[in-house]
Amino acid sequence: MEILKNYFAILEGRIADFPEARTPENLYDPVRYILKLGGKRLRPILALMACKALGKNPEEALNQALAVELFHNFSLIHDDIMDAADLRRGKSTVHKIWGTNTAILSGDAMLVLAYRTLTDGCDAQQIPALLETFNQTALEVCEGQQMDMNFETATAVSEADYLEMIRLKTSVLLGCALKLGAIKAHATSEQAASFYNFGCDLGVAFQIQDDILDLYGDPEKFGKMVGGDVMAGKKTLLMLHALDHKEWGKQTAEILEKLEGAARIEPIKEIFEQTDARAHAEAQMNNYYQRALGHLKNIQLPSEKEAELESFAKFLFERDH
Amino acid sequence: MEILKNYFAILEGRIADFPEARTPENLYDPVRYILKLGGKRLRPILALMACKALGKNPEEALNQALAVELFHNFSLIHDDIMDAADLRRGKSTVHKIWGTNTAILSGDAMLVLAYRTLTDGCDAQQIPALLETFNQTALEVCEGQQMDMNFETATAVSEADYLEMIRLKTSVLLGCALKLGAIKAHATSEQAASFYNFGCDLGVAFQIQDDILDLYGDPEKFGKMVGGDVMAGKKTLLMLHALDHKEWGKQTAEILEKLEGAARIEPIKEIFEQTDARAHAEAQMNNYYQRALGHLKNIQLPSEKEAELESFAKFLFERDH
Repeated sequence: MEILKNYFAILEGRIADFPEARTPENLYDPVRYILKLGGKRLRPILALMACKALGKNPEEALNQALAVELFHNFSLIHDDIMDAADLRRGKSTVHKIWGTNTAILSGDAMLVLAYRTLTDGCDAQQIPALLETFNQTALEVCEGQQMDMNFETATAVSEADYLEMIRLKTSVLLGCALKLGAIKAHATSEQAASFYNFGCDLGVAFQIQDDILDLYGDPEKFGKMVGGDVMAGKKTLLMLHALDHKEWGKQTAEILEKLEGAARIEPIKEIFEQTDARAHAEAQMNNYYQRALGHLKNIQLPSEKEAELESFAKFLFERDH
Repeated sequence: MEILKNYFAILEGRIADFPEARTPENLYDPVRYILKLGGKRLRPILALMACKALGKNPEEALNQALAVELFHNFSLIHDDIMDAADLRRGKSTVHKIWGTNTAILSGDAMLVLAYRTLTDGCDAQQIPALLETFNQTALEVCEGQQMDMNFETATAVSEADYLEMIRLKTSVLLGCALKLGAIKAHATSEQAASFYNFGCDLGVAFQIQDDILDLYGDPEKFGKMVGGDVMAGKKTLLMLHALDHKEWGKQTAEILEKLEGAARIEPIKEIFEQTDARAHAEAQMNNYYQRALGHLKNIQLPSEKEAELESFAKFLFERDH
């Protein structure tokens, strides 16, 4: 998507010399390291796009965009410790390089930097709304992460609980990014709420797509191992659908209990077919996607601005970028 | 100190039902747990005292006081992970009860709660100054903690570096508490700065006293094992003075290298006497204490308000409470 390159370049320019020189350097080295691991910067781009959609220079929301990216990367540092992950974007994770203690502490500093950046250069009048949105989102992301950890050992997880978990853990930050950009562009509270809901529903749809692509994606485009979630016994939307199935639920649980790793893939795939798990997940994904577009329409943007955000939504689901 | 009881009661009332009911509960259980481990609440009391000293109802700074207490307890949860500490105030640490992952995440949520509380119910005009003070302090506390970790393996640590470390790690939060209370009471920026400097210098003096009491305190009053720092080879102000001593430095390093634990106490105590390490530390402590009182005088408070804060400073150094 051509236009994203402009937003991307604006962000990279701001990130390049962030943060300013402070000591001790080894507290801030991990911050610079994870920021430079790259990524598509989709979250901060959403903040810039919302600001632009409301007729303002997107750079007016640059600090809020960066705050979202800092928050996201803080959560990656801490999540990688919790998941004992060795790799992030093909490179060593922060705790593998600097150790767990510095990873905890640099993550903490990064969260503080996110707050500092959020209101940097803002009019006092705009700050309460920015803070309220950011505070609520930050708490919810922690809550979603805790729910996700709880689900690992929970015996029964309902689909509603699962959808709430992915909303909190990953989707609210997309909504938050859009809303912060909208607030900076002096949106009405109704517009800001619609931007937020657009991002949240888009995020949930995207996360459901992730679950579908685990078994049904093109591994070259998707960039993850086929069936990784099934091998790990992860409670995805498809797995929960199978586990909850009147006829096949018990057998699904037995397969997960008896078989390990790759041996799970074929029998689980068979059950997903018998239970229409994929079709069910696709219906849910489309449901959230359409709801997202409904919120976008509610903002009543000029048609070319609406089209840009709709293109972004489509782009997000293409996955070959 | 009788008057502290009033402030303490105000705080306990606010802490009792904090935070509001949110899910998942096991994310917030550690927050409630560490808040209820008690402690003297000296930091938040400072915020209330500053507000009162400027003629306002101390409860006007109650949210800022609580924000400081939340920040302090967030840092305790994460520090206890880093130090692999089993006990905090005689009870199990959060990570011992709930595991490291939840301790990291609950600490993160607690930091967000601190920010949320900091500006809760504030006029938009006051928020920028509150945030600027809190952001700067929060970063500095992280920096101080990282410096402290770096010192453990550093071969040479100067006294200036050590004093800077304790200023950042522990003292700026006392300054911050006072300044937040002062801002809420509409202090001038000069007054707010003097409150801050009073707290910082008092904090450094207090920390130096901690170093002195390790060997020279009454263990019953001090509540820690005599010589614990020496046994652990901790680079306290006294140890750094001995290590840096022209005549005795080399021998100090040799003792630490050759002897372990309790065997270090007598020879190190002997060197501290030969190098006047205790007198040197006491001189530094008094120096900071007097500087603190100078900043207090600069605020030009009514004499009975100044007396209350001076009593607090004295009370802080009595250590039998």
